[in-house]
Amino acid sequence: MSLNSIHTVVLIGAGNVATHLAEAFQNTGREIIQVYSRSEISASALAESAGIPYTCDLKKINKNADLYIISVTDSSLLQVAQEFYAGDKLVVHTSGFHALDALAGTSENTGVFYPLQTFSKNRTVKFLTIPLCIEANNDHNLRLLEDLALSFTSDVRFIDSVQRKKIHLAAVFACNFTNYFYGIAGEIIKSSNVPFDILKPLILETAEKVMEMDPSSAQTGPAKRNDLAVMEQHLAMIDDEARGDLYLKISELIRKKFEHPTNH
Amino acid sequence: MSLNSIHTVVLIGAGNVATHLAEAFQNTGREIIQVYSRSEISASALAESAGIPYTCDLKKINKNADLYIISVTDSSLLQVAQEFYAGDKLVVHTSGFHALDALAGTSENTGVFYPLQTFSKNRTVKFLTIPLCIEANNDHNLRLLEDLALSFTSDVRFIDSVQRKKIHLAAVFACNFTNYFYGIAGEIIKSSNVPFDILKPLILETAEKVMEMDPSSAQTGPAKRNDLAVMEQHLAMIDDEARGDLYLKISELIRKKFEHPTNH
Repeated sequence: MSLNSIHTVVLIGAGNVATHLAEAFQNTGREIIQVYSRSEISASALAESAGIPYTCDLKKINKNADLYIISVTDSSLLQVAQEFYAGDKLVVHTSGFHALDALAGTSENTGVFYPLQTFSKNRTVKFLTIPLCIEANNDHNLRLLEDLALSFTSDVRFIDSVQRKKIHLAAVFACNFTNYFYGIAGEIIKSSNVPFDILKPLILETAEKVMEMDPSSAQTGPAKRNDLAVMEQHLAMIDDEARGDLYLKISELIRKKFEHPTNH
Repeated sequence: MSLNSIHTVVLIGAGNVATHLAEAFQNTGREIIQVYSRSEISASALAESAGIPYTCDLKKINKNADLYIISVTDSSLLQVAQEFYAGDKLVVHTSGFHALDALAGTSENTGVFYPLQTFSKNRTVKFLTIPLCIEANNDHNLRLLEDLALSFTSDVRFIDSVQRKKIHLAAVFACNFTNYFYGIAGEIIKSSNVPFDILKPLILETAEKVMEMDPSSAQTGPAKRNDLAVMEQHLAMIDDEARGDLYLKISELIRKKFEHPTNH
């Protein structure tokens, strides 16, 4: 182990990502010496489950850690970064959205440690195959983060702030919107007393297909086949206006992609 | 084996679903005695790979099968059903969209055998866990189809035509639109030279989450958190107007679902 490697960590934040990171760090044998959250409920919940001290006061953050991880919501990050000063201690954030320079005033040694995954509390996530996107303000810090990241996952990526922001946007389509559509699908079939579980093999296979195929090659359905009669009857079955609008617009985009001319 | 069980099959259609059904039927030890497609290319391709005779003439369909499966596109089904007359032979279609009575003029014994899955040629699908939705014009035929379905899968469902049509619509959201969004996500990140594969663990975990959690509980992302600053910057990053419109509309729906009031 090098003199410079990371053993002790302070976790600033106690949300979904912070909770999963805490567990992952402890699993690699590192020590989380403190958790901060402005919410006492969140701080104490994570601190108790992980068996570590907590504070709700940024001024009381332990100064002796090797690494400070700011893992708060994107909407709180800039404020936390402004209020927290770490001198020359290594500070990283875990945001896909914010640039590295969000931490420019926080420390002389900064980085980003962005696990590209969807995290919910009460669900275990295996870090082993999660892409960890890292960036740092100099090569030395980047090597420290690479070393750290490799103890979590085999998939470490050097991603700059511009690329990361695009990945973050892509993840909204690939994950957040997709999950929302699972919910729409569930509501549609529950209205005829068919349980959600009938969709599970389809949902899983749709995802598994693109592990091996390009999404374009994997595309199926009435819009791809340009089956106007089916699309029109589907539209007539949707009683929610906003949902009907979505159906129409996405179907049009799929039709265009597969080169069927628009005719209404 | 009962006197009435199904051993010999004629497959009417040679597309994605027909191709996968041919293999699945042969795997259960049944015999496909003929394939029909109006396209000689499709008919001969499937016939050759499965080692069975084919015809492109509906009038030349072998009259001696136990079961006739019409597995053509939704847009062709009604015409094929009209042109093909099977007397009292059992005829089923595999469409999620069309009602059982699409076959009313085709035979005295009719049913539906709808595997709820996305099929692409050149991709093996394991039938073992696919929900097979069956319906028939009488109880005897329903039992024949149940017996048949159980030799493919452990998940056989009695689904009427109204329910099936809703399932089919739900599948558009859960599968077709979802896959299209995987493609959008891929295009977004490829524009900054990040390969699609970085999204794969996220896509898979998003699907796997709803195997165990309700989609509402699994929801994450800026719209759920009502993070307007992130959503506004995302919108500014999307240069395609139709795609930006989608981002805005779906984000609004997610915000409403999680009870954040609309403010623009």
